[in-house]
Amino acid sequence: MKVAILGATGMAGVEYIKLLENHPWFKVSAVTGKRTVGLIYSDAVKSLINAPKSVADLEVIEPDPRKIDADLVFSALPSSAAREIEPKFLEAGFPVVSEASAHRMLEDVPLIIPEVNPDHLSLIKKQRYGDGFIVTTPNCTTVGLALALKPLMDEFGLRKVIVSTYQAVSGAGFPGVPSFLILGNVIPYIEREEEKVEAEAKKILGKLLGDGIVPADLIFEASCVRVPVIDGHLEAVYIEADKPIDSEEVAEVLERFSGEPQRLRLPTAPEKPIIVSKTVDRPQPRFDVMAGSVPGMSVVIGRIRSGKLENSLKFFILSHNRIRGAAGGAILTAELLYSMGYLRGR
Amino acid sequence: MKVAILGATGMAGVEYIKLLENHPWFKVSAVTGKRTVGLIYSDAVKSLINAPKSVADLEVIEPDPRKIDADLVFSALPSSAAREIEPKFLEAGFPVVSEASAHRMLEDVPLIIPEVNPDHLSLIKKQRYGDGFIVTTPNCTTVGLALALKPLMDEFGLRKVIVSTYQAVSGAGFPGVPSFLILGNVIPYIEREEEKVEAEAKKILGKLLGDGIVPADLIFEASCVRVPVIDGHLEAVYIEADKPIDSEEVAEVLERFSGEPQRLRLPTAPEKPIIVSKTVDRPQPRFDVMAGSVPGMSVVIGRIRSGKLENSLKFFILSHNRIRGAAGGAILTAELLYSMGYLRGR
Amino acid sequence: MKVAILGATGMAGVEYIKLLENHPWFKVSAVTGKRTVGLIYSDAVKSLINAPKSVADLEVIEPDPRKIDADLVFSALPSSAAREIEPKFLEAGFPVVSEASAHRMLEDVPLIIPEVNPDHLSLIKKQRYGDGFIVTTPNCTTVGLALALKPLMDEFGLRKVIVSTYQAVSGAGFPGVPSFLILGNVIPYIEREEEKVEAEAKKILGKLLGDGIVPADLIFEASCVRVPVIDGHLEAVYIEADKPIDSEEVAEVLERFSGEPQRLRLPTAPEKPIIVSKTVDRPQPRFDVMAGSVPGMSVVIGRIRSGKLENSLKFFILSHNRIRGAAGGAILTAELLYSMGYLRGR
Amino acid sequence: MKVAILGATGMAGVEYIKLLENHPWFKVSAVTGKRTVGLIYSDAVKSLINAPKSVADLEVIEPDPRKIDADLVFSALPSSAAREIEPKFLEAGFPVVSEASAHRMLEDVPLIIPEVNPDHLSLIKKQRYGDGFIVTTPNCTTVGLALALKPLMDEFGLRKVIVSTYQAVSGAGFPGVPSFLILGNVIPYIEREEEKVEAEAKKILGKLLGDGIVPADLIFEASCVRVPVIDGHLEAVYIEADKPIDSEEVAEVLERFSGEPQRLRLPTAPEKPIIVSKTVDRPQPRFDVMAGSVPGMSVVIGRIRSGKLENSLKFFILSHNRIRGAAGGAILTAELLYSMGYLRGR
Repeated sequence: MKVAILGATGMAGVEYIKLLENHPWFKVSAVTGKRTVGLIYSDAVKSLINAPKSVADLEVIEPDPRKIDADLVFSALPSSAAREIEPKFLEAGFPVVSEASAHRMLEDVPLIIPEVNPDHLSLIKKQRYGDGFIVTTPNCTTVGLALALKPLMDEFGLRKVIVSTYQAVSGAGFPGVPSFLILGNVIPYIEREEEKVEAEAKKILGKLLGDGIVPADLIFEASCVRVPVIDGHLEAVYIEADKPIDSEEVAEVLERFSGEPQRLRLPTAPEKPIIVSKTVDRPQPRFDVMAGSVPGMSVVIGRIRSGKLENSLKFFILSHNRIRGAAGGAILTAELLYSMGYLRGR
Repeated sequence: MKVAILGATGMAGVEYIKLLENHPWFKVSAVTGKRTVGLIYSDAVKSLINAPKSVADLEVIEPDPRKIDADLVFSALPSSAAREIEPKFLEAGFPVVSEASAHRMLEDVPLIIPEVNPDHLSLIKKQRYGDGFIVTTPNCTTVGLALALKPLMDEFGLRKVIVSTYQAVSGAGFPGVPSFLILGNVIPYIEREEEKVEAEAKKILGKLLGDGIVPADLIFEASCVRVPVIDGHLEAVYIEADKPIDSEEVAEVLERFSGEPQRLRLPTAPEKPIIVSKTVDRPQPRFDVMAGSVPGMSVVIGRIRSGKLENSLKFFILSHNRIRGAAGGAILTAELLYSMGYLRGR
Repeated sequence: MKVAILGATGMAGVEYIKLLENHPWFKVSAVTGKRTVGLIYSDAVKSLINAPKSVADLEVIEPDPRKIDADLVFSALPSSAAREIEPKFLEAGFPVVSEASAHRMLEDVPLIIPEVNPDHLSLIKKQRYGDGFIVTTPNCTTVGLALALKPLMDEFGLRKVIVSTYQAVSGAGFPGVPSFLILGNVIPYIEREEEKVEAEAKKILGKLLGDGIVPADLIFEASCVRVPVIDGHLEAVYIEADKPIDSEEVAEVLERFSGEPQRLRLPTAPEKPIIVSKTVDRPQPRFDVMAGSVPGMSVVIGRIRSGKLENSLKFFILSHNRIRGAAGGAILTAELLYSMGYLRGR
Repeated sequence: MKVAILGATGMAGVEYIKLLENHPWFKVSAVTGKRTVGLIYSDAVKSLINAPKSVADLEVIEPDPRKIDADLVFSALPSSAAREIEPKFLEAGFPVVSEASAHRMLEDVPLIIPEVNPDHLSLIKKQRYGDGFIVTTPNCTTVGLALALKPLMDEFGLRKVIVSTYQAVSGAGFPGVPSFLILGNVIPYIEREEEKVEAEAKKILGKLLGDGIVPADLIFEASCVRVPVIDGHLEAVYIEADKPIDSEEVAEVLERFSGEPQRLRLPTAPEKPIIVSKTVDRPQPRFDVMAGSVPGMSVVIGRIRSGKLENSLKFFILSHNRIRGAAGGAILTAELLYSMGYLRGR
C-alpha cells in the first residue's frame, strides 16, 4: 500500500521514514512539509537524518489531498496544523492515522493502542466522511501508562492512578527545549501534558458501549516533568485497585499480557508488549529504551513494590516516546487496520 | 563556641566549613578524617574546596573524643562510621548534632527540623549519656517534604502522601554516582532512600506524647529517582487531606508558615522557610535552589493544583540537599539548641 | 550618567541589567526590544530573570533615537539588527558601546579590551558622526584569548597561535542550541566563529600607527566547538614565540599583568585581570568561571606547559562568555571611556 | 581458536564479550577477574551488561596461566595489573594481545593499528618468551589520530601535529569520572594521557629499521580534555606538512585509504577505515560514533580546512574509544595475527 506522511520533515515525521524503510506492507509515496515545499526530501531533513534512498528524491509537497496518491495517510502534524489539514484529507476520502492531539478526544474518533483497545476501532463506522476515516494514537506519555494499566485493570480493577513523569527532550520535538534551560536541570511543567494524559488514558481504558466510549471510572492524577534525557519517558506510578494486589502476581500478569498485534503477528508488533525487569535499579532510559524484539516498541516495567494499603502498588514504566509513543504506535495501528480489513486501497 | 566536625573531609563535611565561615556563634576547632589523618585540612580537601584561612591549617585528626576540644560536635560521618563513632563522643560527654542516618530512628533520639518539631528536643532528657546527648537531622529528601507538609497537616489534616523525587547527584556524596551511569539518564533507585523518607517524615510529623514520639498516622509512599542535576532535590507530591482543600488557601498557608528559628532570629534561619512560586514552570533546581534570604535554606514550592478529589492536592517542592538537607539544617538545629540553653560549653 | 540598552530583552541584554544594578556611575534609563515593545520590562524578560526594581517598570520601547534620553547607549543587538540600528544612534549624536559584531572590523572603529588596547580608543576621533561615536567589544571567544596573549606578546613576541575551544551553550544566546543536539554531545562548528576569533584577535593585538590599526603579524588558527556547559569558554592554546619561553616565567608574567582599568580602579575592574591556577586539572568552567574579585571579569589560566620547541608553550584559558565576554566587558569599556573623558553627558 | 580475556569483568573487558559474540574465528573459553573470582560471569558483570548465553555460565577465575586453556589471550587489565600479570602468560607460552599501556613502549613490543603498521609485527621475533609473545594496541586517543595521520604522512610528509581532545567519560573506565565533577563541565586534564598520545603516535608512525622502530620525526603536542559525552573521542587537529597541502586532495587521500585488514577481509575490518564527512558541523560523537560497515571501527573525519600557511591543515577526527580504541582494535589485531600465521593454537 502507498502511504503519505503529513509533516514528514519534522522530528516526528522522520521517524516514520526510518521505521517504514523495508516495511513489508507500506511504501512511502508522498511527503508533505511547510517551509521546505519544493525541496527534495533528503535536503529538507538533512539536519535530522540521512534520508534512505527510497525516499531521498521525493519532492516535499504541500499537504493538499488533490496532489497526493496514497492508500493511507499518516499525520505527524503539530496539533494546530492537524486541526485544519486532517479534515481535508478525510473529506477527500483518505484513511488517516494521526498522532496529533487535535482530534483525539472527539466522540467518534478512536484513540488506539493496538494491544489495549482494538475494539474501539468500530467507532470508525460512526464517522461521516464517506470512504475517509480517522484513527488517532495517544500522547507519548499516555501510551506506556495505558499499556501497563490495561492488564492490571482487567485483573485487579483500578480506582486511582497517581503518576509522575521523567520525560525525554525528544518528546518536545525540534528545536524543542533550549539547552540553556535543561542542562543540569529538570523542568516541572509541560504545557497541557497532564490534562492530556489524564483524559486520554481514561478514554483508552474505557468501554465501548452502544454508540460510544464510556471513559474508565477512576481517579487519575499526573505530574509531568522534563528531564535531560534524549529518548525514553520514565514514569513513577502508584495505583489503588479494587482488590488486594500482590507484587509477584502483578509481574506475572504483566509479563503474559499480549494482544491482537501479537496474535496477528503484525510486522511492527514486539513479541512482548510489556517486559518486566527484575533488576533492582531498572528500567533506565539510556539502557532499556530499545529493549525487546522490535526496538522501541516494548514497554519496560520494573521495581514493582507493594504499597502500604493492601490494594496499592508502586512501579516504574519506561517507554520510547518517539517509537511506541509516536511513529511506531501509529504504524502498528495502521497494520492492525490493514489486518482487520479497514484499508482497501484507493 | 568551639565546634568539631566529624567526617570533615568528605563532600558532606566541607559544607559545614563553608557555612560556618564567619558564623557569629560557632568556630571550627577540630576536623576529623579517615584517610587524610595527619594532613593539614586545606590539603586534605583540595579536590573539593579551597579551604578558608580560618581552618586551612587545622590538622586532620582521628575521630577520638580524647583528642578533641569542642563544645559541640557536628557529625557528617557515613552511617556505618556514625554507628560506631558517635556513641564514643556521647559517652565522653559531647553534645552531638548528626546528619547521619545511624541513630535517627532510635526512640530517644530527636529527629529535628527546627521549624517543624522543636518540641521533640525534649527527648534529650531521656538519653542516658551524662552531659552528652545526640540530636539528628533528617535525610536530604525528607527535609523539604516534612517542612512543606507540616503547615498542611496542621491546617487540613493529612491522610495520604504520594511522592516521587528528582534527586541531585550531590546527594550521593563523593565520588557518588559514576558519570557513565547518569549522563543522559535517570536512575529509578536509591538504596534504602524510600524507606528512610517514609519512616522519617512520619516521626518528624509525629506527636510528642508522654515519653516518646507517636508517628503521624498517614499513608506515605515514596519513589526515589536520581537525575543528572548538580544540587537540589525536586519532589512531585500528591496528598489527600482530612478536609476539602483549596489551592489558593494552600498557597497562603505555606507562605505565612514560620517557626522558632524565625521567631528567635537564628543566624542561619531564612526569613521565609517556604517560598511559594507563582510562575507556571517553577521551581527548577538550577534556577531556584538558592532562593531566599539565606541561600539554600528555604524550600520553594510551586505548581499548587487541586486534585480530582476535593480533599486532594498536587504540588512540587524543591530543597537544597547539601544546605537545608544536610549541613545547613544541622547548623540551624545547633543554633536552636544554643538558643534554648541546651549547649552550655564544656 | 543615564544609559540606554538596545536589545535589552534578550539573553545578552539582561546581563547589563544585572551588572548595572547598583552601579556607581551608570543608571539604566531606557530599554529597547522588538517583540515586547509596549510591555513593562519585568514582564518582557520574566522567562530569563526577575528584573530588579530599578528597571522593572520601564516600558520596553522601539530602538528609536528620538525616543531615548541617555548619555550613553549599550548595544546588545544581534548583528543584523546592529548593522541597521546602531548608525541611527551615531547620527543622532549618541556614544555607543556595542558588543555586536556588525562594526567591529571597520577601520575607524576601536575594538577594545580595556586592559589590552586602551590606546586604540583614539580612533574615535577619526569617526564622522559629530558628537556620536562607536566603540565595540570583541566576540566572547576572542576576549579571554587576547587578554592572555597580550602580556606574552609583549614579553616573548608571538609568531603562531593554535587554539581549540570548548564553548558554553549560553554563548549561543536564547533559545540557542536545541537540547536534543547537545546533550551528551559536542558540536565542532559554530557559524563564522573561527573567522571572527582569528581576525579580531589580530586587530586587538595590533598597533596604532598613524591613522589606523596594523593587525598583529602572526599566524592564527582556531577550531571552535560547542560543549554542554552552561557558562564559560575554555580554550586549549598552543603558541610559538620569537624567543625561548619558560613556563615558570610565563606564570609570573601573566599574574603580574595589569592595565588601565586596574590603575584607574574602575568599578568593574577585577584586581587581577588574569588569575593563574596551579592546580593540575584547572581551570574548569563550573568551578572557576566566577573566580576573582569581580566575579566573571577575570580570566583563569592553567596547565602552563613547555612545548617540544624551546619557543613553544601550551596552556588553557577560561573566561566568562556572558560577563567578561559580553556585558561586563562592555561596561568596563564604558567606564574607561568615562574616566578618559570621552563621555560628557548630553 | 579459544581465547581468554584477562580483566573480563571491567568496562574494558565486557566489550570483548560483546564483540566476540558470534565471532567466526574466536570463542571465549576463559574470563578472569579480581574481586569476583568464583562468581559466574553473568553475575559478575550484571551492573554493566546482560552477558550473552555463550559466556554467561563461565566461572570467573584468577589470572593464573596454569588454570587457563586458550590459544590466545586478550588483556583488558589496568596498567599496573598488566605489568605484573602479562609476563606470566608470556612465560607460559601464550600469545597476548594487550590494550594495557604497561608494555606499549618497550623496544621489542609492537604497538599496532592494523591498517597503519602491520609490518611492525615482525618485532615479535625479537621477543624471548619461547612460544609466548605480546602485541599491544594504543591508547584510545592515539588510535583515531594515528589512523588519520598515516595517509597524510605518506602523501604530504608531516612536521608538526597540534591536537586538542574532547574525550568521552567511558574512556575513564568504571566507575571512572564522578558525575558531580563532569556534569555541565569539562576537565582539562587526564593523567599521563598527553604523554601517551605523543609518544605512542610517534612509535606507530615510525619506521621499522634493522632491529627496531625509529619513531616518526615530528613535533607532537597534545592537550587532553574530558567532556560529558558517553562514547567517542573527538579531536581538533592542526598539522604542518612537508609540502603544500590542499584540503580537497586531503579528503580524497583519506577516503581511499585502506590497509591489510581490508585486503584480507578480516571479520572486524570496516570497509572504510576512514569516513570523510562533508556536512559542515560533523563529526559529532552522539550521531557519528557508530558510522560505517562495522559500527565503531571506522574513524570519521570532517571540517577539513586549509590553514594560513600553505603547508598547514585543520580538521576534526572522531573515533570510538571503546571499540576501535580498545576491544575492537585488539580483536582486529588478533585477526591480523591469525591471518599472518602468528597464531598456531596450543
